[in-house]
Amino acid sequence: MTHVHVAAEKNTKNAVVVRKPFVIEGFRVNAVSCNMRYSGRLDLALIATERFLKVPVAAVFTQNLFAAAPVEVSRRHLKSSGGMGCAVLINSGIANACTGDRGIKLAEETCRKVAKAISVSSESVLVASTGVIGPHIKVKAVEGVLPELVNGLAPDKWDSVAKAIMTTDTVPKSAYAEMMVGGETVKVGGVAKGSGMIAPNMATMLAFLCTNVHVNQKILQEMLAKAVDESFNRITVDGDTSTNDTVMMFAAGPDGVAKILTGREPEAEVIYELICNVCQDLACQIVEDGEGATKFVEITVTGAASKEDAKRIAKCIAESPLVKTAFYGGDANWGRIVAAAGRAGVRFDPKKVSLYFDDLCVFKDGVPVLLPDVEKRASEVFGKDRIFVKLVLREGIGEATVWTCDLSHGYVDINASYRT
Amino acid sequence: MTHVHVAAEKNTKNAVVVRKPFVIEGFRVNAVSCNMRYSGRLDLALIATERFLKVPVAAVFTQNLFAAAPVEVSRRHLKSSGGMGCAVLINSGIANACTGDRGIKLAEETCRKVAKAISVSSESVLVASTGVIGPHIKVKAVEGVLPELVNGLAPDKWDSVAKAIMTTDTVPKSAYAEMMVGGETVKVGGVAKGSGMIAPNMATMLAFLCTNVHVNQKILQEMLAKAVDESFNRITVDGDTSTNDTVMMFAAGPDGVAKILTGREPEAEVIYELICNVCQDLACQIVEDGEGATKFVEITVTGAASKEDAKRIAKCIAESPLVKTAFYGGDANWGRIVAAAGRAGVRFDPKKVSLYFDDLCVFKDGVPVLLPDVEKRASEVFGKDRIFVKLVLREGIGEATVWTCDLSHGYVDINASYRT
Repeated sequence: MTHVHVAAEKNTKNAVVVRKPFVIEGFRVNAVSCNMRYSGRLDLALIATERFLKVPVAAVFTQNLFAAAPVEVSRRHLKSSGGMGCAVLINSGIANACTGDRGIKLAEETCRKVAKAISVSSESVLVASTGVIGPHIKVKAVEGVLPELVNGLAPDKWDSVAKAIMTTDTVPKSAYAEMMVGGETVKVGGVAKGSGMIAPNMATMLAFLCTNVHVNQKILQEMLAKAVDESFNRITVDGDTSTNDTVMMFAAGPDGVAKILTGREPEAEVIYELICNVCQDLACQIVEDGEGATKFVEITVTGAASKEDAKRIAKCIAESPLVKTAFYGGDANWGRIVAAAGRAGVRFDPKKVSLYFDDLCVFKDGVPVLLPDVEKRASEVFGKDRIFVKLVLREGIGEATVWTCDLSHGYVDINASYRT
Repeated sequence: MTHVHVAAEKNTKNAVVVRKPFVIEGFRVNAVSCNMRYSGRLDLALIATERFLKVPVAAVFTQNLFAAAPVEVSRRHLKSSGGMGCAVLINSGIANACTGDRGIKLAEETCRKVAKAISVSSESVLVASTGVIGPHIKVKAVEGVLPELVNGLAPDKWDSVAKAIMTTDTVPKSAYAEMMVGGETVKVGGVAKGSGMIAPNMATMLAFLCTNVHVNQKILQEMLAKAVDESFNRITVDGDTSTNDTVMMFAAGPDGVAKILTGREPEAEVIYELICNVCQDLACQIVEDGEGATKFVEITVTGAASKEDAKRIAKCIAESPLVKTAFYGGDANWGRIVAAAGRAGVRFDPKKVSLYFDDLCVFKDGVPVLLPDVEKRASEVFGKDRIFVKLVLREGIGEATVWTCDLSHGYVDINASYRT
């Protein structure tokens, strides 16, 4: 296995995440073009279990009050099926959000069409959409290509799925990790889409993961929720999500390679680590592909009184448009970074604060470091396309890392004319 | 008096705010060039009372933990003088922020130099700075021009003061309102600077106001704090301020045209209204001159369960970069606006929500209005350089208005290279 990428978080241990083609036994996938809004490109994907067996499904959805119809319908289906499902249909181009009762009806109808095509109950089919808010999903467009979509299901088409769910994304995003446990290879793989990184909470973010391990649904839900908090929520504000955000994970059925039934099995830690690392890698890919992004920035706050404090400060820095434009301009403007920390709503002593760019200390104990070459070396760091910022508080042991990107002309271009 | 501009808030009543030259009896002002950082332009201003008498001074400062040295020093002076003062010195170019104990010492020294030049006690001199974070204020530069600054004090040089305090501002900002009360003309006038409107909380915002009315210091402080909450805080996040933000107001001494000693005098309401309207007008000028701004946007939320709810939703919309780029692109993307409302952290029923652009209803009871010409008419509204957005909730009678601008290429240009 080639070491393509190691997720930045400290707990990576041995699970190496790669961005290469993968197969997860027990699952088949496919993507086709249904001309929902884009023409001549993949825009409809199906992830399904082998023989359309019902398996445990976990999901984390948007907290937005205007949750889209597909989110409502998937929530209802998971509730009525007790968290069991056998397929998820994903379309790009139209979000089916703010579409009222009719939007819900159409999302339900879409599920029924898929259920009929693969001979399962409607509740075991889930649905996700991403694209423009307002228009309804085109059920006829979906219906027309369903035979092609179902007949073409295969274990090795995750790359097509990753492409089909893209909107303003410039590259498809997938990640995979595996580990040997008790003579068996346990696997986690997934795809994601996401953009709008200036304030990631507003971007629609979708991610779909599968594992060949049989995990009890409740345990799977716990693991996914925790992993999302350590990954996608590190590029987003808690509870501040778009209309369609969805992270969904399918586990293997009882014929999976291992069994996690209580969460206390020795394999449980391994499988959680794989899920967390795959989620972090997908989250970082979303940042790297942020709308108009030219730089990837990792912001770590250490020495805070609590983990929550650290996270709050790191996010306040990461979301500051003034800080983000400074990254874009390659301007090592530490003043904007400490000013953002100072208004995060967290109490700390400004006289104990230090700031590092990579390993260069630019601000120590509340005042700038005035050594002759600091400004020059700081500019060198900011000239790179990956920037590591570390703020040290000396208040306690709270620590958090968030990932963000710069704010560029490209962002303005993309978002000033997204609908046209 | 020409009606140049009427502040947008409903409570404008009869006090018309103008953006014309003014004089406030009891005060003299001046501005000179001291080459603090910029050369060949006004960058140092002094606002002083007639005969350097001590008068009541009210002030609202930044809540940022990294409050700049001039903020610390002005806070101390107002505390030790019981809120009485006779002059404020303002420089642009260097913020004297994050400058540690030495920064404080230099700000104190600056006050002492001014105090000596006008023969008053150091505590009755206040100071404010705006510009780059990091460098110390240059006391020698100030000292060199002090005689010129003091000798040139005159009642009619407010326009020079407005120019001297600018940083990335493209136009000087001043506002004035007067009203006849009991046969006397009561006056409020002021100047302001501010920019960085994408997330205004991070911009340094300075404003200085004077009135010819004698107002008890405690009442003055109450009135100013309330007016700031209804104006500058409507373009900023509560408590989220830059290192140097300062709004300061001088009242006349006992020889003023009216006396507000208890706040229950009939004139009290008039003087508060004047202060509030001048502050709102200055706040709107700051938005209109937002960095790179091409459009002025007023966002009103009505029918919320409370005023606080309304404010929170209005700000969440106003601060959304996706919404702001849509304003820039002239894209009447109502989906981004309702999505921002839905993640504001306020509970409401999305099925009772309606949205208006000017008086055009684009979204009614939770779904888009699909009449044939709505899209075209909405685009016309978004094509204008002043856009009025109104979100109606039907949850109660809470109402709030905030002002913002669009997010443009100009913003990115300005902020990617501010220090260079």
